[in-house]
Parts: sequence; structure tokens; C-alpha cells
Amino acid sequence: MTDLQNLVALSLLPSWSWLHAAERLRAGDTATATLHHLLAHHWRDQPDKAATVQMRAAAAIRRAKERGIAAVPWSDPRYPAALTTIVDPPPVLWVGGAIDALNARAVAIVGSRAASPYALAVAGRLAADLAARGVVIISGLARGVDSAAHRGALTAGTTVAVLGSGVDVMYPPEHAPLAREIEKEGAIVSELAPGTPPMRWFFPLRNRIISGLSRAVVVIEASEKSGSLITARCALEQGRDVLAVPGNVLSGRNRGAHALLRDGAKIVESADDILEELRIGEPTPRRTTDSAASCTDPILACLTPGEPSDLDALAERTGLSPSRLLPRLFELELEGSVARVGGGRFVRV
Amino acid sequence: MTDLQNLVALSLLPSWSWLHAAERLRAGDTATATLHHLLAHHWRDQPDKAATVQMRAAAAIRRAKERGIAAVPWSDPRYPAALTTIVDPPPVLWVGGAIDALNARAVAIVGSRAASPYALAVAGRLAADLAARGVVIISGLARGVDSAAHRGALTAGTTVAVLGSGVDVMYPPEHAPLAREIEKEGAIVSELAPGTPPMRWFFPLRNRIISGLSRAVVVIEASEKSGSLITARCALEQGRDVLAVPGNVLSGRNRGAHALLRDGAKIVESADDILEELRIGEPTPRRTTDSAASCTDPILACLTPGEPSDLDALAERTGLSPSRLLPRLFELELEGSVARVGGGRFVRV
Repeated sequence: MTDLQNLVALSLLPSWSWLHAAERLRAGDTATATLHHLLAHHWRDQPDKAATVQMRAAAAIRRAKERGIAAVPWSDPRYPAALTTIVDPPPVLWVGGAIDALNARAVAIVGSRAASPYALAVAGRLAADLAARGVVIISGLARGVDSAAHRGALTAGTTVAVLGSGVDVMYPPEHAPLAREIEKEGAIVSELAPGTPPMRWFFPLRNRIISGLSRAVVVIEASEKSGSLITARCALEQGRDVLAVPGNVLSGRNRGAHALLRDGAKIVESADDILEELRIGEPTPRRTTDSAASCTDPILACLTPGEPSDLDALAERTGLSPSRLLPRLFELELEGSVARVGGGRFVRV
Repeated sequence: MTDLQNLVALSLLPSWSWLHAAERLRAGDTATATLHHLLAHHWRDQPDKAATVQMRAAAAIRRAKERGIAAVPWSDPRYPAALTTIVDPPPVLWVGGAIDALNARAVAIVGSRAASPYALAVAGRLAADLAARGVVIISGLARGVDSAAHRGALTAGTTVAVLGSGVDVMYPPEHAPLAREIEKEGAIVSELAPGTPPMRWFFPLRNRIISGLSRAVVVIEASEKSGSLITARCALEQGRDVLAVPGNVLSGRNRGAHALLRDGAKIVESADDILEELRIGEPTPRRTTDSAASCTDPILACLTPGEPSDLDALAERTGLSPSRLLPRLFELELEGSVARVGGGRFVRV
């Protein structure tokens, strides 16, 4: 029995035992020893359990080989470095497509399955803009926001889908063609052995891998009980940044995202907000045109940034009467070039 | 010459002199002395200026009397207490309607003139919900969000409009019937003498009165250059709370509101968020149904709030196998009744 087969056998045990397995492996135990320990401890009354999981592990490895699915155990140098930092990394990742996509700079975009056209548009645009800047987009291949994010990313770069089933079991089934597209440059990933059907309780567990692979998680349109909030909580536990896109307050669709904002998540209007937060690249300056205009304004020219001036001083410096100055100062204030400070003074911003 | 007439005369001087006037009046100078000082200092070369402003002041007082407009000088006990706390309170407020509405607990709702149907709906709903709780809604009678807020408030309570013109000069003119409705229980207010036309530079100045009369300013749909951001800045300078309603990030209509949220403004989804922030009344509890359900859940019953339990302990206490427990725990997590903590343990929230 190979080390890989023992690791796969561990991943075939019920999910509640995964943390125990991760702890022992992390402590230096071999896969064999960990497997034996867990079986002896929790399946004392099922002496044939060992043989069964070993058989299923061997079958999973064979099946993966036949279907071109890579088995990447956590001892493999190709195993994503980001995932090794979480408390319960999968012992084996099953990967369809480009394994190296898992080690790139990545941001997760997740949200509602029953998404509004607004959420789909935002997801697609953010994903495309980030992908164009070389950021890999991680999501869950679900209906709604997830698939919009994958599709947006595909227009400009690379994306990775993390499944709640084996990578050869497409759920939802209509996303099979999308998965094929994703695999071309990116990857389809799961901790579940090939052939594992999509069970409801796999999805919350899957979410920790979405956040674990990412430097930040962006939530779009999550209701109060959305699974995306679990991804956000995983992200916080894993020390990842959580960002949220605001939206309509009347539809009830954004309660979850707004709750995240209330709790300190960063607000996202554009890809630049995410790049800024992650200090990736140079975001587009927000006010190019304004600051260009500023240089030529005679009033601004008389204001030293950071030094408040009152109207009398400004009148003297500009040669304009206060009644002429004031309307123009309010225009500059509206433009954001000038701010009013205490005592009716003005300061250049 | 009465004290009132001198205060009115002061308010008829150009707006740049108002802060000087307020400083001297606050320091204890009489209205007469302040007026003489300003005239001597700034209009040395116009010896007839004093007579002109006195004549105009007397005319304004006459005109107000004819039209049923009250002149409330800051020495008047009916002068709004909140306004006396700002750095540049108007020497005289001209009021149509119920003067006592100016001394009630108030919240300002301001925003875009070219408002979307979404912004109008939110403004109307927030105003109605707050007014129903006895909060007076302050706004600027402008097109868009302002008038939607006034109209919403009128369905359930009282509202006050602060104008950028004399209270007998309606701008925009089509809001004259709305102003008449507002005056029935609330008030139309201006620091500008009756008959003053709506000049562009009066509006930013007017905004400090909107925030000054209010305990908090709620911004709905403000673009990056919106006048509502001036009201928000006035509010911060005056120590008022600033809150903002989020919205669509693709339209560009909410950049200002989102910038406020980024800078720490509280996020508003409903009137309860505002009432909570101001600690006014008892807001509707957010999760009545959830917490009612919680008491009857057998797993929750085995979790002591604040004490994390691992799966083995929970299995022992509930008599359920870990593989049965886990799906239910994730459901409870989605409901927000249970949170995952480090080491794969669960805690009751």
C-alpha cells in the first residue's frame, strides 16, 4: 500500500474524522499510522472497515487514473501552499486540469445561487477585471454567482472550481461544459474521491477549501442564511480578508453581505477595491481628471495642502472678494478638491 | 431699531461674514455692536451700507408678518436648541408652520435629486418608519430623495424642510403644494430673509442647518460629487452621526454613499438601524423566529452558550452519531444558532 492510498483511505472516512486525521498527520504521524489509529479508535466493532476503505481507496486511485484526474497528496510539492496553512487541509486533492493554477495568487468570489441579474453582472465584471490582472478566481461552480464568476474569469484569465462532489461528478449537471472550459487553463478540484456524489453536507465543508485557496473572499448577494456566509466565516478563521459587495436594501437579498459590512468587511465597488486591499498591483487612481483640473485652478494654487486658510487670507492671496470666492470654494468642495474645516476655514485636499 | 431687526440686518450681509457675526454674538456682543463692527470693518468705503441693510431688514420683517412667517432670533427660547451647538448658527430663522417641530428629536434624510426609483422607495420607507416612531424628518425640499423623504414622513408623522431661499420663495416651484402639507404639522425653515431667491451658493450653506437640526444624517444615493456629501461633512463637523444606505455598485449612483461607508458611516437597511444607532426606542429584534426555534432543538439543548464542544462530546451527550450530527450542525450554523470555532468544535451563539 502506497502512502497515497493510505491518505485517500483517510479521506474516505466520514468527514467528522478529518480534523483528527489532519492533527495526527500534522504532528508527524505517517498516513498508515493515522489510519490505523482512527480505525482502531472509532471502528473497533467493525474489523473489516480497514479492508473496505483500502479497497475503495485503490478503486478511487484507479478511477482517477482512467479519467485523467490527478491525485495530489499533501506531501506532494504541487499541493497548494495556501491550503497547508488551514487547520484541516484535505489529505488528498483530486484535480482535473492545470495543477499549478492552485498555487497562483487567488481571490474567491461567492454568492447566491438564486442570484439577481445585478449580482450576476457584478460577479462577472469583478472576476473578469481581477483575472485580467493575473488573479485566479476561485469559486464553487454553483448556479448563480459562482458560475457567473467562473465565466467572467474565463473571458480574461484563469479560474478554479472547488466541488462538493468528486471532480468527475458534475453538479449541477448543466455546468459540465463550463467545467471543461475551466479545466483548459485552470482546474476543477475536490477533496472527495472521484465518483463521490454531491451530498448536502459536503458543501459547507467544501467552502473551507474555497477560502483556503484564496487570499480574500468576496461575497456578492448573500441572504441571511446563505452558505456564502459560511465561506466568509471560514475565511476569517483562516486569516483571509473578507470583502462584500453592497446592493439593494429592499429586496432582502443582501442582508448577509450587509451584515458582513457591518462587522467590518471591506466594501467592494470594483476590482480596484480588492486589489488595493490585497496590495496587488497599482490600482487605477480614483480621481485623475479632478487632480489634473486642480493644478490650474487659481484658488487651489493659493491653498497649500494641509494648511487651512480663512476667507480673508484667501481673498488677499487670490485678489478675489470673499463673495466671489465663496461660490467657487463650494464648487471645489463639491469636487472634493477642498474641504471645510473648523472656524470656517478651507483646506486643500 | 429692535434687536430682531439688527439680527436680520446681520443675516442680510453676504454669507462670508456670517461666521464673523456668529463669533462676536457668541462672545456676548450685542446685535447692534456686531453689525456696526462688521460694517465699519468690511464696508468702510460704503457709508450708506448701514442704512440700506436696516431698510431691507425692516422690509423683510414686514413682509414676514404679512405672510404669516415667524422670525425666530437666536435669543428666542423657541430657537432650536440643536442649532445653537453648531459653529455658525443663523442669527435668525424664518419659519412657516409649527415652530415647535424644530425642537423635536430629528433625523435628516438627504440624497440625489436625479434619484432612481430605488432611492425614492428607500427614502419614503425610512422616513415613514421613523416618523411613525415619533422622529421628525429633516430634508431640503429638493427634487428626488429630499421630497420622497418629506412625503414618506407625512404619511406617518412630522417633517421639516430647510430651504436655500426665503420660505416664501418655493424652489423647485412644483413643490409648493408639498410645502403647504409640510407646514400643517411641521415647518418650512430658512435663514434667508423672505423673498430671497434660490441662489446656487445658498444650498451648501443651507446643508449645515439640515444637519444642525438633526441627531443623524442618512445619505441615500449620493454620487461622488453630490451636495449630500457636504451635508454629511457638516454633520461630522457638528458631531452628528452619519449613516448611509448602500445600493447598486454598477450604476455609479452610490459612489458617495459607499465612500461614506468606507470611511466608517453606519450602514442602513431599515429604520431600526437608525433607531439602534441613536438608541431611540426598542428596535424590532432581528431573529425572533430563529431563537424561538432554537430552544426546542435537541442538539442546541446540549450546547451551553459560550462553551465549545467537539463532535465526540456532542455525540455522547445527544446520543447521535457524528455522521448524523454533522449535517444538522451545519444547518444550525447556516441558521446562525451555532458557530464553528478552532479545532473543529462548535459553540452555541
